[in-house]
Amino acid sequence: MKAALLGYGNLARGIESAIVQTKDMELTAVFTRRDPSSVKTISGVPVYSVDDIMIYKESIDVLFLCGGSATDLPAQTPEYAAHFNVIDSFDTHANIPQHFAAVNKAASESGHVAMISCGWDPGMFSLMRLYANAILPDGQDYTFWGKGVSQGHSDAVRRVPGVKDAKQYTIPVPAALEAVRNGETPELTTRQKHTRECFVVAEEGADLARIEQDIKTMPNYFSDYDTTVHFISEEEFLRDHQELPHGGMVFRSGRTGFSGEHKHIIEYKLTLDSNPEFTGAVLTCFGRAVYRLHREGATGCKTVFDIAPAYLTDMSDEEIRAHLL
Amino acid sequence: MKAALLGYGNLARGIESAIVQTKDMELTAVFTRRDPSSVKTISGVPVYSVDDIMIYKESIDVLFLCGGSATDLPAQTPEYAAHFNVIDSFDTHANIPQHFAAVNKAASESGHVAMISCGWDPGMFSLMRLYANAILPDGQDYTFWGKGVSQGHSDAVRRVPGVKDAKQYTIPVPAALEAVRNGETPELTTRQKHTRECFVVAEEGADLARIEQDIKTMPNYFSDYDTTVHFISEEEFLRDHQELPHGGMVFRSGRTGFSGEHKHIIEYKLTLDSNPEFTGAVLTCFGRAVYRLHREGATGCKTVFDIAPAYLTDMSDEEIRAHLL
Repeated sequence: MKAALLGYGNLARGIESAIVQTKDMELTAVFTRRDPSSVKTISGVPVYSVDDIMIYKESIDVLFLCGGSATDLPAQTPEYAAHFNVIDSFDTHANIPQHFAAVNKAASESGHVAMISCGWDPGMFSLMRLYANAILPDGQDYTFWGKGVSQGHSDAVRRVPGVKDAKQYTIPVPAALEAVRNGETPELTTRQKHTRECFVVAEEGADLARIEQDIKTMPNYFSDYDTTVHFISEEEFLRDHQELPHGGMVFRSGRTGFSGEHKHIIEYKLTLDSNPEFTGAVLTCFGRAVYRLHREGATGCKTVFDIAPAYLTDMSDEEIRAHLL
Repeated sequence: MKAALLGYGNLARGIESAIVQTKDMELTAVFTRRDPSSVKTISGVPVYSVDDIMIYKESIDVLFLCGGSATDLPAQTPEYAAHFNVIDSFDTHANIPQHFAAVNKAASESGHVAMISCGWDPGMFSLMRLYANAILPDGQDYTFWGKGVSQGHSDAVRRVPGVKDAKQYTIPVPAALEAVRNGETPELTTRQKHTRECFVVAEEGADLARIEQDIKTMPNYFSDYDTTVHFISEEEFLRDHQELPHGGMVFRSGRTGFSGEHKHIIEYKLTLDSNPEFTGAVLTCFGRAVYRLHREGATGCKTVFDIAPAYLTDMSDEEIRAHLL
């Protein structure tokens, strides 16, 4: 199975490193909107201009779309689904129905399979919510993120005047986690679920009190949370805050029995050293499924909910029944 | 969708209570090998002799087989797959390939869908192993059970001469869990993973030291574990040990990156007040999938690996994309 990447940022490199670990997939090309000669891949796979992508059509069984959800994917996924099997990590939850409709139209008309919103949230966390809701229809869902770096929030802090660099960590509140794990099914406000911690390198002479105030009162990003701001040196920042760890937990707390007398808690927890590499690993195995579904004659837009798990692995059905069931 | 149960033990009552919670399924009959007049269902659904099951063929979309894996299911599942869509919880891991082959032959020939080995282990834990292995091919699996009642081990203790009644709890070793959660990928022996705790009501005048010795040295069941035996009164036993809680954890600890430099831990954890009711809830939503697959024209034997998650819920595809993705 031949794979290609469109884009070469953090996520694309995560997919590249995951494909290298597989036995049944080969990365044949990276396509970029930049000057191809300015992009060098870690694995040495060739880089081409996206303008030339149709030249390489025959060597692409699945195209991984590695752009952002704000402006890239809403246009790219339908556009490339007209010519390729594609997979994206579209994560603007509110716009998923609209994105699905556009991608489904393009992929159905062209006879390709196009998967959207793959990764860990949306993606594995969505799967866990679905399984747990199906098993325990009488119950409540909880999703916590972190401890980990939110790139959107880090970007927001970097846009504050006087900030040279910044990383923002999202942290679940231990008391909230404890209450959910104990089956107390608490009602939790935004503030009760997560805290936010910022590590900021300020420009020389900047007004630190004003920066801190600007961050803590920023609507949507910080004003609904308890936020801590640490000013640190650039040296410390470069030493301690270069990685992109993340993770989180999905819970369902539900009841069974003729009078709802028995409680059950399902927890799915991810602890990730590298968010882009784990996301890339998830996309890689679902990319395998996209290719297999297409070979079987499937077309149209798919999500993680539509994929039978056996399609994800390179092991045979006999092997998985013998070793994993 | 019309469902029926074959057998009416703990698991069957768990399925019965789960079907009562659904909006799209109706329990139409219970079939028993006992005298039907001696069996009274909690929900009031009628009980018939299994000898008459063919009379009710038209009112059974899915037949839940609630027998045991040792002798009932190896015969029953192929037998009834010749006439019905069926689902079982066959859990003798070593015999799954052979059971699959027999059931697949019967269901393929009769044009039905027959699902085997459904529940939480095998079942949800198997799914978690598959997803996690597909995402992190370079890694190690760990499965822990408990704290919870093992019915097989409780039965084994009850067979010791001088034992009037007994419950056995399987307990994961905290230090082993801790090491796995920390990403240490330890090599663990049987003894290092779980301890066993027995609560025993002895017959009057029985030799307690001999009973304890018989339990602790019992091959397969206890000799490879650190086991604690508590002798308690019948009153205490009836007060504190009537429930069937269980649960456990599946971990995958894996690495990504061009040099395996990033660690990731996936954990799936179940904390269950009632093992049979949770197992029944899992079987109920996979029973829904069996029926839907059959309506679409599928035939043959299926496992949890073959079922796209969207088939499990009564929500529409639009709803799950809007609310769970």
